[in-house]
Amino acid sequence: MRTHYCGDVTEALLDQEVEICGWVHRRRDHGGVIFIDLRDREGLLQVVFDPDREDAFATADRARPEWVLKIRGKVRRRPEGTANANLNSGQVEVLGLGIEVLNQAKTPPFQLDEDDVGEDVRLRYRYVDLRRPEMQQHLVTRAKVTSFMHRFLDENGFLDVETPMLTRATPEGARDFLVPSRLHAGSFYALPQSPQLFKQLLMMSGLDRYYQIVRCFRDEDLRADRQPEFTQLDVETSFMDEDQITTLMEKMVRDLMHEVAGIELGDPFPRMTYAEAVERYGIDRPDLRIPMELVTVSDLLTDVEFKVFAGPANDPRGRIAALRVPGGEALTRKQIDDYTQFVGRYGAKGLAYIKVNDPSQGAEGLQSPILKFLPEAAITGILARTGAQAGDLIFFGADKAKVVNESLAALRVRIGHDLDLLEGDWRPLWVVDFPMFEYDEGDGRYYALHHPFTAPSVETIEDFQAADPEALISRAYDLVLNGTELGGGSIRIHRPELQSAVFERLGIGAEEARDKFGFLLDALEYGAPPHGGIAFGLDRLVMLMAGASSIRDVMAFPKTQTGACLLTEAPAEVDEAALRDLHVRVRKPQRS
Amino acid sequence: MRTHYCGDVTEALLDQEVEICGWVHRRRDHGGVIFIDLRDREGLLQVVFDPDREDAFATADRARPEWVLKIRGKVRRRPEGTANANLNSGQVEVLGLGIEVLNQAKTPPFQLDEDDVGEDVRLRYRYVDLRRPEMQQHLVTRAKVTSFMHRFLDENGFLDVETPMLTRATPEGARDFLVPSRLHAGSFYALPQSPQLFKQLLMMSGLDRYYQIVRCFRDEDLRADRQPEFTQLDVETSFMDEDQITTLMEKMVRDLMHEVAGIELGDPFPRMTYAEAVERYGIDRPDLRIPMELVTVSDLLTDVEFKVFAGPANDPRGRIAALRVPGGEALTRKQIDDYTQFVGRYGAKGLAYIKVNDPSQGAEGLQSPILKFLPEAAITGILARTGAQAGDLIFFGADKAKVVNESLAALRVRIGHDLDLLEGDWRPLWVVDFPMFEYDEGDGRYYALHHPFTAPSVETIEDFQAADPEALISRAYDLVLNGTELGGGSIRIHRPELQSAVFERLGIGAEEARDKFGFLLDALEYGAPPHGGIAFGLDRLVMLMAGASSIRDVMAFPKTQTGACLLTEAPAEVDEAALRDLHVRVRKPQRS
Repeated sequence: MRTHYCGDVTEALLDQEVEICGWVHRRRDHGGVIFIDLRDREGLLQVVFDPDREDAFATADRARPEWVLKIRGKVRRRPEGTANANLNSGQVEVLGLGIEVLNQAKTPPFQLDEDDVGEDVRLRYRYVDLRRPEMQQHLVTRAKVTSFMHRFLDENGFLDVETPMLTRATPEGARDFLVPSRLHAGSFYALPQSPQLFKQLLMMSGLDRYYQIVRCFRDEDLRADRQPEFTQLDVETSFMDEDQITTLMEKMVRDLMHEVAGIELGDPFPRMTYAEAVERYGIDRPDLRIPMELVTVSDLLTDVEFKVFAGPANDPRGRIAALRVPGGEALTRKQIDDYTQFVGRYGAKGLAYIKVNDPSQGAEGLQSPILKFLPEAAITGILARTGAQAGDLIFFGADKAKVVNESLAALRVRIGHDLDLLEGDWRPLWVVDFPMFEYDEGDGRYYALHHPFTAPSVETIEDFQAADPEALISRAYDLVLNGTELGGGSIRIHRPELQSAVFERLGIGAEEARDKFGFLLDALEYGAPPHGGIAFGLDRLVMLMAGASSIRDVMAFPKTQTGACLLTEAPAEVDEAALRDLHVRVRKPQRS
Repeated sequence: MRTHYCGDVTEALLDQEVEICGWVHRRRDHGGVIFIDLRDREGLLQVVFDPDREDAFATADRARPEWVLKIRGKVRRRPEGTANANLNSGQVEVLGLGIEVLNQAKTPPFQLDEDDVGEDVRLRYRYVDLRRPEMQQHLVTRAKVTSFMHRFLDENGFLDVETPMLTRATPEGARDFLVPSRLHAGSFYALPQSPQLFKQLLMMSGLDRYYQIVRCFRDEDLRADRQPEFTQLDVETSFMDEDQITTLMEKMVRDLMHEVAGIELGDPFPRMTYAEAVERYGIDRPDLRIPMELVTVSDLLTDVEFKVFAGPANDPRGRIAALRVPGGEALTRKQIDDYTQFVGRYGAKGLAYIKVNDPSQGAEGLQSPILKFLPEAAITGILARTGAQAGDLIFFGADKAKVVNESLAALRVRIGHDLDLLEGDWRPLWVVDFPMFEYDEGDGRYYALHHPFTAPSVETIEDFQAADPEALISRAYDLVLNGTELGGGSIRIHRPELQSAVFERLGIGAEEARDKFGFLLDALEYGAPPHGGIAFGLDRLVMLMAGASSIRDVMAFPKTQTGACLLTEAPAEVDEAALRDLHVRVRKPQRS
């Protein structure tokens, strides 16, 4: 219907006749002439209608924002001084010769260039929201990212293989979305949380290298920026070890960032063990742009009388860590109170601090409510170990290590942003040597830190069974960028007896293992190759690359925090007959 | 872990040392030497172990089929007369120097080269089944097909955009799979039967050109070769008419077939109206490789006394059609009885026929139980119109047109295969000018032949409302290849008042339309561009290209006809607690 996209009409087409289709972005009447900025996916183009072409002028005069027009006209240079350097088409305009109204439009619920539209309205009228150039650019970036991934992986011998969406419920994971079966009364499919077992089965099928850009589902309580359905790039290979897999995936990410977004990530990405990450940053996905680090000072405080410190200092599961804030002396009482409240969300019962006015004067040069509780030696030790400078402030976390790590990790990021301390734009990091298991005191059992199919770093079942479960290291690896986990994976267990031993350690007995994972245990018996893989969260990756502020902005039709689609009003009630076919009924709400 | 794939070791590597990994395809002991055919994704390689390397020999001697080995060895030419022309590596073999057992394997449930393994066993042990080179080749073809589609559509300015899987139930379609919502008690998501409305909304969002390779779901009773979840290539564009869309898609299919499978489809594909297809073949997806056609002879039989013919000949909804079978005179009584039974499945109450021994002798040269009921003129007319030759047989369908069309269309295909009448390998066809509506006598209402968003060929609402519903033609198009529908699409309605009028004609009142499709009707009000698209069934397309005999053979993990996964045993019962979270309970089976 058209000869060109609006955004592609440039000086190269001067004096030519073009046909364009698009939406009325703006219409104005200026000096007896009608100006229409016509918009399509590629950009804006200014069209001018003179009154001497009566029919076209009359139609242009009637046109309103968001009407859909087809316009025929001649490309000419804009008058001196009226060029628009922000537009690809900004040197030219089109003199309108003909105009056809393809569709009219009601006044849209918000202006496309309005900034502070509520997200609910944007989601309700998503088809208007998605017309905004910024939103279109996000979807274009997303398409470029997946296109790059397909090309890179195809070229590297990976096969794009589809795995089922209607599958079996996963024990040992998040909550599943369930789908009642009509043909098998009382039975349910589950939507996949990931194709983990299927991709391992593909390796046992000899497919050698697999990938898939695949929808996954988790019925979890939605925190900000989580979606019930999300997309991952899922990869698995046989006969490669963790170095080979991470090296290849690192190349993919580096090339992707460079090619699609002009982002340079450096080569190679640094690596850090889980233990070091937690020690220095309190978290296994540190944002390396923030220069502050946690410093353990427990050993300096074992003998103090101050109970807040003495307890954690002498508890094997406790930790006292110092976080030195450069220039933090300037923090106000109110700011410190805010931070104290902030760490409270992570379970910290307080937030001790020392202002460092002049460290050369020892305790004299410091300012803190806790100074009186601390012996001189401890103070000197802390100043030396944190490398405190005049003008700094030192925060302390003292509690169970878990609480200290979580609260100071969050505080570090918050202060890093508040005080504008970030250095560098893009800081990738591989985190490796994760623990195999985490002990849950509440449940009184171990859980797999990654998943129960992750291989331990010990080779034999004897070494596995002899090891202290908390000391066992897994062959897992996570890729972190600017404090966001982009992806994670591991070498998997390929020997059936080791898989059984891991299940056992997780408290899954032989019978239960057979019931839940019988097909995997069987498959491991029939010649499973050594294999491993990784999965990347596509939504979050694109969000970072596109500079979007939420994953909802890089999805065409996202859901709200309660999992609702405001556009189609899903989920919705359904006919009783449909439920009867599926052998289920809705439970009556409990009386309160 | 390896230097080469097994299948890639050729004469180019003579005298080099290689490391290979793979599965033991065959092991044999021959003249005191062990031969192992090692298999990986790329093929087979023969490895020889001499007894003079004791350790390697001993390990090779222990190895059994499907063990996973890593072998180091030297490439050498096979002895004179032992080359295997069927293998890429068939000129060489590897002298084994080292061997490592990566994993052992139990004796597989079937041999990979066994031909008549039951499909249930194959599905239960899919990871063994998928090791067969033929199955791997199917998945490779599938990956090549999707890779081509991504490239072609990316290059043509289409954006790969993801649409939701957890969405709203579709009225007016097949049965939905439903997903109970935990956060919205008593409400359900539906899995999409297709992203139809979302892709239309993307056009209203100004995305201009969209595509997606997307999973779709239909909870229908599964006929042979249907799957509850299937994949389609889904495409939508704005500002293009049906000629432009079909031309571009035709180019994609032609280039795809050529590049991936070496199949040549001709240029351009022929086009045929729906009416012509039904008249000549009884069906809207004729297999043009079969030269036989249906010929209407109703008008020749209006005055006969033979009631079987007189009824349909005089019924406006009736039809009498003749199907001339070249050389059909040779059909036995038993074959004809079989065909009679066969058409009975389609509702035909009988299958009249005339054997044409010598048409030049008039009725004397014919042989048929119905001859005595037919006047000479009718017989002469039929012979002339069907072009019957000596040695032919003419079958007759006489009933409601629907029964005649369905039964003779099926019979035509069956006989075409039985008598080996197919001509040409690949016969694509665009079918166009479909009726808008079909009347269902049972329900006493019209249904949309495609879907209710398909545009009629009339432009204005006045023309639409004035037209006889059964005479209305839609702007839909289907692509057929060898009797299989590869894809179908249409120009969509982009004016809200016309969409409302179509809903009304389908018996969907204003209130119901608003309730079910309110978001679509709203979106049409805010500046919807003219748009249209198409969807291709990926599984069936790959099946044809790969020469597979079932769509299950081009899916990694297909389901059975009852929608079960024999490998993972999905669907399965779930914990009562999980159901309580979802606010549903299983209905007790009805007492019988």
